Amino acid sequence: MENILIRYLERPKLEDPIFVEGLPGIGNVGKLAAEHMKDELKAVKFAEIFSKYFPPQVLVQDDGQIKLVNNEMAYVKRGKGKDIIFLTGDYQGLTPEGQYELSDFILQELKGLGVRRVFTLGGYGLGRMVTKPRVLGAATDAALVKDMEKVGVVFSRGEPGAGIVGASGLMLGLGRLYDMEAVCLMGETSGYFVDPKSAQAVLEVLTKVLDVEISFTELESKAKQIDAITSKLRDIEATPETPEKREDLGYIG
Amino acid sequence: MENILIRYLERPKLEDPIFVEGLPGIGNVGKLAAEHMKDELKAVKFAEIFSKYFPPQVLVQDDGQIKLVNNEMAYVKRGKGKDIIFLTGDYQGLTPEGQYELSDFILQELKGLGVRRVFTLGGYGLGRMVTKPRVLGAATDAALVKDMEKVGVVFSRGEPGAGIVGASGLMLGLGRLYDMEAVCLMGETSGYFVDPKSAQAVLEVLTKVLDVEISFTELESKAKQIDAITSKLRDIEATPETPEKREDLGYIG
Amino acid sequence: MENILIRYLERPKLEDPIFVEGLPGIGNVGKLAAEHMKDELKAVKFAEIFSKYFPPQVLVQDDGQIKLVNNEMAYVKRGKGKDIIFLTGDYQGLTPEGQYELSDFILQELKGLGVRRVFTLGGYGLGRMVTKPRVLGAATDAALVKDMEKVGVVFSRGEPGAGIVGASGLMLGLGRLYDMEAVCLMGETSGYFVDPKSAQAVLEVLTKVLDVEISFTELESKAKQIDAITSKLRDIEATPETPEKREDLGYIG
Amino acid sequence: MENILIRYLERPKLEDPIFVEGLPGIGNVGKLAAEHMKDELKAVKFAEIFSKYFPPQVLVQDDGQIKLVNNEMAYVKRGKGKDIIFLTGDYQGLTPEGQYELSDFILQELKGLGVRRVFTLGGYGLGRMVTKPRVLGAATDAALVKDMEKVGVVFSRGEPGAGIVGASGLMLGLGRLYDMEAVCLMGETSGYFVDPKSAQAVLEVLTKVLDVEISFTELESKAKQIDAITSKLRDIEATPETPEKREDLGYIG
Repeated sequence: MENILIRYLERPKLEDPIFVEGLPGIGNVGKLAAEHMKDELKAVKFAEIFSKYFPPQVLVQDDGQIKLVNNEMAYVKRGKGKDIIFLTGDYQGLTPEGQYELSDFILQELKGLGVRRVFTLGGYGLGRMVTKPRVLGAATDAALVKDMEKVGVVFSRGEPGAGIVGASGLMLGLGRLYDMEAVCLMGETSGYFVDPKSAQAVLEVLTKVLDVEISFTELESKAKQIDAITSKLRDIEATPETPEKREDLGYIG
Repeated sequence: MENILIRYLERPKLEDPIFVEGLPGIGNVGKLAAEHMKDELKAVKFAEIFSKYFPPQVLVQDDGQIKLVNNEMAYVKRGKGKDIIFLTGDYQGLTPEGQYELSDFILQELKGLGVRRVFTLGGYGLGRMVTKPRVLGAATDAALVKDMEKVGVVFSRGEPGAGIVGASGLMLGLGRLYDMEAVCLMGETSGYFVDPKSAQAVLEVLTKVLDVEISFTELESKAKQIDAITSKLRDIEATPETPEKREDLGYIG
Repeated sequence: MENILIRYLERPKLEDPIFVEGLPGIGNVGKLAAEHMKDELKAVKFAEIFSKYFPPQVLVQDDGQIKLVNNEMAYVKRGKGKDIIFLTGDYQGLTPEGQYELSDFILQELKGLGVRRVFTLGGYGLGRMVTKPRVLGAATDAALVKDMEKVGVVFSRGEPGAGIVGASGLMLGLGRLYDMEAVCLMGETSGYFVDPKSAQAVLEVLTKVLDVEISFTELESKAKQIDAITSKLRDIEATPETPEKREDLGYIG
Repeated sequence: MENILIRYLERPKLEDPIFVEGLPGIGNVGKLAAEHMKDELKAVKFAEIFSKYFPPQVLVQDDGQIKLVNNEMAYVKRGKGKDIIFLTGDYQGLTPEGQYELSDFILQELKGLGVRRVFTLGGYGLGRMVTKPRVLGAATDAALVKDMEKVGVVFSRGEPGAGIVGASGLMLGLGRLYDMEAVCLMGETSGYFVDPKSAQAVLEVLTKVLDVEISFTELESKAKQIDAITSKLRDIEATPETPEKREDLGYIG
């Protein structure tokens, strides 16, 4: 079996397309953002990527049919230089080698599809609750840094201190070896929950850069659900603890 | 050394055979089921599969002779479209890569043997005792889902939530890439013990589908042994705990 | 870099040689036994095996010179059918794949050297102190089992329950694929300490089988050292515990 | 993607150059030492090494631009037999296989660059504070051991007991297979902090051997910062503990 297998459902003819990556990660910010934008723009799935670097797992869909875990690519046509390719998926590669192989493989496919500009989306975990998430950035060259600052992206010395791990980082690092211009947009997030609010912050920047208009209703309603859960948890924490309470919580944990 | 090595003891001529997989997993449900059916039908071993994705281990048999851990294939002839190939074994692949390689390798061999229909057997761990295990299903297409529902297989939205991990899942996911129709049958099980009762539930469905008759005496007697152990454990748990008891249990744990 | 690298210092001409393996493992029984016998018979090192399946490590010798961790082969000439090749070393392969690759690689080399009989030496961990270690066996065929029983090797149903893991097992399991007759001799050991007494028990059997005479003085003196340490520890354990004692032991642990 | 990728920015013509390795490790002694010496000698970066054996990570620099984690080589020209090549970097290989592959790959490149003498720099962790770090050594041959003893390197029987793990060890062990003379210099260090003082001790030896003069001001000032932190921690530990103190520390930990 090949390490990575791509199955094209269609070979789209795109003109100088822009690539947007959003895979699972901290707070699932990147995945939420890319999937939301893809859905809002009614992008068309054109390729499936399977790999032995993913878990050996199938998902069972609501109709009882299975789906081998994968990454998928979808496109939307908007005219020369404005076409977009989305990469979304169930997992990132499980091992460092797998991460490198997958990012490199996908960049090669993108090269073939004519991509020269890359946006990777992710979360920046703060380990504390965030009320108004900033969007941090990193880029492959100085001109891009300037461009992003103009639309409100924060480039903050020493943040993120640990660098960017996974596909969102590698596609910049390896992308440079493929002569691609690439930007990583990271929404601040606690890292404790999936974070639609942070995903929205990231998309507000990205849509401005790409001159796209989309509705955020879906993300906002997801954000409200999460808020309801987290504020309930805060209430529990704030309540003075009694031995009985403690026992009750034991049943939850 | 090749990653995977198959040794054919015989090259059986089979007519449109059906494949049944049962390897170790949750509650060993799949393994128990496939081995029981294979034994009852007096299937003939025809191939051994060795691999560096298995543990580096030999088992010592009762006569002092060793056996390198492996997977085995056996066949039973029942006439065109009714022949069955069983896959049983000591282990599944240890790593995700190994899982993918092994499932893909075996599917290729099966393709060569003319297999187009696949049944994978496994357990669905509930984390609590189960008195009457249901059999959950997942399949590669909608028609199969319908067929299975007719014989009592449960397709339940959101179950199994984590999908199907390992060979029982992969052989469906990859099987589809080989144009094979595949069904996974999962017997509910606590996951705490090997579970012959759950294996029987799975086989009651499978034998109906394949129009096979077999005795379940062996599985039933195994189930009684397990029941005897688990009810003893329940008794111990139900006894009001005293400090002395606690100490005693300490010696067991 | 090749996965495994063998460097021949000499290409010995051996007549139908017997192979003896003793690598690190439980109680280091196999390693102690093989190294002792090799030293007593003044076997000549003729090959070094390096591999990326070993730890990335050099050892520093007493003269300040380094040695890349390896496995080594040595031979002793005793006449047709009596020549012996020893395999000893610093480590076994770190991963399952590495274990398979190394055992297979070495068996291929041995095939080239004319080996048809293999003895692998190891320990059988009991998890309790052993005063008079038995030597358990496992073999590739029934005739060998009989031969070994004649010299006192114990073939005990269900022992070792977990089979034989690592090179001592694989060289039997894979050896059979190379048409080699192979026996594993396992000395009982607590598994808590290196165990020269168990190594001696193994060698008493092996030397009888191979019709070799060697001194055991070295192993006996090592065994005395270990006994001195373990009986001291037993004394400490036997002493009634007081809070002060407990504190003292804290400094040791 | 290739496992290891080297990008030459320049192909320097060097005469019988000496190689100095300093990658991250215990107390970061080797990395600190090699980077300091490289900076002091204004060595010129000429090659970047990327690999899937490194973490899948980019670092974000102060200007917002990213850098794919790598190892780098730099050279300084000092005349025949005195030219130096430095290897520094963000990481060592993550797996044993990666470690072997990377060291072997780099040694091959060095062979092509004409290197015959190798110095690897590292720390020797003692697990306790060290006031005046000794420099321990290990070498590929007896003459080198003597040469190093003359400049104060300590070759101490049984130290380091666990051998040398990682690139500093492998480049000696594999270097010998490439007919390179190699020495490892290890500065004693607690292993609890990055240790510029230990790095300086190592460099004092190395600069003497290579007849180089450099300033240590930078390292000394780094050492003072570390000393300030560690002596503060010692003060806290020495202060008699009260329940309130304990709580306060809880907030720090």
